[in-house]
Amino acid sequence: MNGAVSLLGALARNDVTTCFMNPGTSEMHFVAALDDVHEVRGILCLFEGVASGAADGFARVTDRPAATLLHLGPGLGNAFANLHNARRAHVPILNIVGDHATYHARYDAPLTSDIEAVASALDGWYRSSARPDDVASDAADAIAASYGPPGCVATLVLPADVSWSEVTHNGAPLARRAIVGDVPGHVVDAVATAVRNRAAVLLLGGTALRARGLAAAARISAKTGCKVLHETFPTVLDRGAGVFAPERLNYLAEFAAAQLDGAGVLVLCGAVEPASFFAYPSIPSRLVPDGCEVLELAGLTVDVPGALEALADALGAPDHPAVPEALERPGRPTGALDTRSLAAAIGSLLPEGCVVVDESNTSGVGLLGATVSAPRHEWLTNTGGAIGFGLPAAVGAAVGAGGRRVVCIESDGSMSYTPQALWTMAREGLDVTVVCCSNDSYAILNYELSRVGATASGERAKAMLDLTGPTLDLAATSRSYGVPAETVTTADELVVAFEKSLATPGPSFINARLASIFR
Amino acid sequence: MNGAVSLLGALARNDVTTCFMNPGTSEMHFVAALDDVHEVRGILCLFEGVASGAADGFARVTDRPAATLLHLGPGLGNAFANLHNARRAHVPILNIVGDHATYHARYDAPLTSDIEAVASALDGWYRSSARPDDVASDAADAIAASYGPPGCVATLVLPADVSWSEVTHNGAPLARRAIVGDVPGHVVDAVATAVRNRAAVLLLGGTALRARGLAAAARISAKTGCKVLHETFPTVLDRGAGVFAPERLNYLAEFAAAQLDGAGVLVLCGAVEPASFFAYPSIPSRLVPDGCEVLELAGLTVDVPGALEALADALGAPDHPAVPEALERPGRPTGALDTRSLAAAIGSLLPEGCVVVDESNTSGVGLLGATVSAPRHEWLTNTGGAIGFGLPAAVGAAVGAGGRRVVCIESDGSMSYTPQALWTMAREGLDVTVVCCSNDSYAILNYELSRVGATASGERAKAMLDLTGPTLDLAATSRSYGVPAETVTTADELVVAFEKSLATPGPSFINARLASIFR
Repeated sequence: MNGAVSLLGALARNDVTTCFMNPGTSEMHFVAALDDVHEVRGILCLFEGVASGAADGFARVTDRPAATLLHLGPGLGNAFANLHNARRAHVPILNIVGDHATYHARYDAPLTSDIEAVASALDGWYRSSARPDDVASDAADAIAASYGPPGCVATLVLPADVSWSEVTHNGAPLARRAIVGDVPGHVVDAVATAVRNRAAVLLLGGTALRARGLAAAARISAKTGCKVLHETFPTVLDRGAGVFAPERLNYLAEFAAAQLDGAGVLVLCGAVEPASFFAYPSIPSRLVPDGCEVLELAGLTVDVPGALEALADALGAPDHPAVPEALERPGRPTGALDTRSLAAAIGSLLPEGCVVVDESNTSGVGLLGATVSAPRHEWLTNTGGAIGFGLPAAVGAAVGAGGRRVVCIESDGSMSYTPQALWTMAREGLDVTVVCCSNDSYAILNYELSRVGATASGERAKAMLDLTGPTLDLAATSRSYGVPAETVTTADELVVAFEKSLATPGPSFINARLASIFR
Repeated sequence: MNGAVSLLGALARNDVTTCFMNPGTSEMHFVAALDDVHEVRGILCLFEGVASGAADGFARVTDRPAATLLHLGPGLGNAFANLHNARRAHVPILNIVGDHATYHARYDAPLTSDIEAVASALDGWYRSSARPDDVASDAADAIAASYGPPGCVATLVLPADVSWSEVTHNGAPLARRAIVGDVPGHVVDAVATAVRNRAAVLLLGGTALRARGLAAAARISAKTGCKVLHETFPTVLDRGAGVFAPERLNYLAEFAAAQLDGAGVLVLCGAVEPASFFAYPSIPSRLVPDGCEVLELAGLTVDVPGALEALADALGAPDHPAVPEALERPGRPTGALDTRSLAAAIGSLLPEGCVVVDESNTSGVGLLGATVSAPRHEWLTNTGGAIGFGLPAAVGAAVGAGGRRVVCIESDGSMSYTPQALWTMAREGLDVTVVCCSNDSYAILNYELSRVGATASGERAKAMLDLTGPTLDLAATSRSYGVPAETVTTADELVVAFEKSLATPGPSFINARLASIFR
């Protein structure tokens, strides 16, 4: 048995059984080992950013890491943007990065690259396996590290000779995962006192946004009437009829500040203190009002839903507060296709139990409202601001979701970073419905251009934010990668296409042509 | 005037007048400044890897850097692979990476990222501009650094507030470029003695592969009969009838070692000591035979063509040795489309003065032979092994080539990393002919799989090297990005399509379906 087979054995033993990969020569023994260790499924991606985004989406719906297989520094570079998104959300991922043979490094061959430097920007766990006998335990350590808490991107470098050389003893150790601790009672009590006595706002993030955390927050809200917000870009938000729905902290700093206005205490529950997404010349970066105390109920390394339950108990909150249970969908829209009718179309048909991957950006402004009382579903967002997240995350979510439909609401600018994900959807027959909001513009940048005070911009600047000349034919792009596609220009057409897609196994793509508000 | 306008002024002053960009909110003032500084041309790319590859291609044909405009760490990450290729070839590039406002960094907003860590893996020049007044001189320093020698990737970070704040004094300093030194006479004499007395092999790289270096090498070869090789992956190789054509050092280590067999002295001329591209279990990484001395005539920081001329003079070489001057093209091929007829088709029609961007990989095995006596042209290759180079480099080469035709010989697997480059070709109306060699396979990996000794591979491994299920319809991908395209399946069809494309202004794409030898 060589190092590669030993590694795959360790992955299988630790339930890392999906590997999104784009291999090169250094990784050939890893690839060959897929025929020795059938528990691990290799899924080929045409670009490493698809692999990393897929690993992110997979972990979000399964609560366990997938592996990526990448080719030296350039492969990790290509994967970096979506790994950044995963890092910001503390999503566990195991990167396996093939490297030159250890003895080959000194020759400085063309692909020699500083993998560790790139990985260091991911701020997670890093190790290069030195010997075949170490690989299995290194993998177990990496997997354990990826779980955290908090979860992180773990990068294990696999030199080619470590991969191809024989191991002298084999073992597939179990990853020793850290215990997720409870929040101490005195912290809970202090927060309870503050919430009782002051105008309190709870800010929920991370695992507080799963059903158990939301149920506890509903109890607290029912008892105290405090405002409950959720972080702007949730990792996974459980939603739908019967689920307590916190208000979303607005993306725009001035609106977010208004949501926090008047708060005497801001209680962080699996979230960090919020700040403006970007800086603007005349808008404060800090959102929390002066004089508002910031208390942390539960950080990233503890049991956040448990802490919320303890807080609810300490406050004497009711066990089963009233939450709107009724399913309430918007009617099927007709007429022009704009952000409102788009949202209504999605809300009118969103299937029970689905996973929504949302990279709709400006076009999706109405989506959360139109789906809040739809059947139960999960909502995944771009947590790090590196666009090109949606299609890859939809790949991974669909692989992990065990047959549940994935609805990926994309946008034309964003999907153009990682269109290759469509091919993997087709190849794996994934049940993904892509609704791509096309407005031929980096619409958000047209908006930001004025917000940052760059008001005097002319035609040369505007051309850099404009996706025309030629217009992208994204339905054709999709078909070229093997995913059936159509273009719709009215709300009626979108409803028909969306309904058809939801009823059709495998992926399909709907190019939804919205009028741009900026052109 | 704000920092952004000052920066663009410094670029213009230093002849960096092309910026391949994919901006975000932090870069809005830079974008707006394009309307103030008309000397700088912004070219929008849909993905940062296109911008970086384009900057590489541009610099290779113009001998001066282009700028990229990237969005924080994720933007630099997306650009990384093609920057790696540029780094390996010492191609000058100026990255401008927008960052959060300096005062905003402490809030750890979602896009906050360790730009410096990623940049450090590029092993070039790095600085973050601290004040608006510094930006212009920082830019001049960065440009000077990018020229080297040796050339490098310079990364200048531009915080948003440095970009939008007013400068108090303005100046656009001239980049103080380092002098390229001459090789000392005693080094030339020592090499001359060695070449006279021993079986010598010259290995040419870098600027030795431009016309002046090749002419000097021809003289040396004519006088001494020594073998002259060129590095496997030239940055720019001047070629064609009347140009001395060194033999290419083979990509495969065993063949490369055979080319060096019997050498008593290996003379490095703008090249580094060669090593195997990858390590293999039973093939030595070092290519130079035991007992062969390695002498450096000229390294990366000196005037390499000048050193070759000095060596030729020292050897008493003739001024004008005989070099085959006759134009000699293969006939137009007919019949099946394979690597031979593909090469003949290209060779039969390659236009004078064109730039060839070669990322044909296994499919291009016959190309150099079929074009050696074609009309004069330049040949650009992937110098770092990070694939996805070809289409982006063709964009940049076409922008820089002043109307000369760019012939980009791509392959299906490689182009799938950066297909978005096609849109920029269409938008800018670039005279690029893409011939994409399609064999539905990572053919090189199928080959390497056996070479690394992973012989027992089964269906699960092979599926990771196979680009079917579905087959990529790359002509449709091209059309979806606005570049006219057709698919050809015979040599005759390729000749017709290639000839038509060469005669048609703007880009066009030919999907050349070759039978894979590995499926």
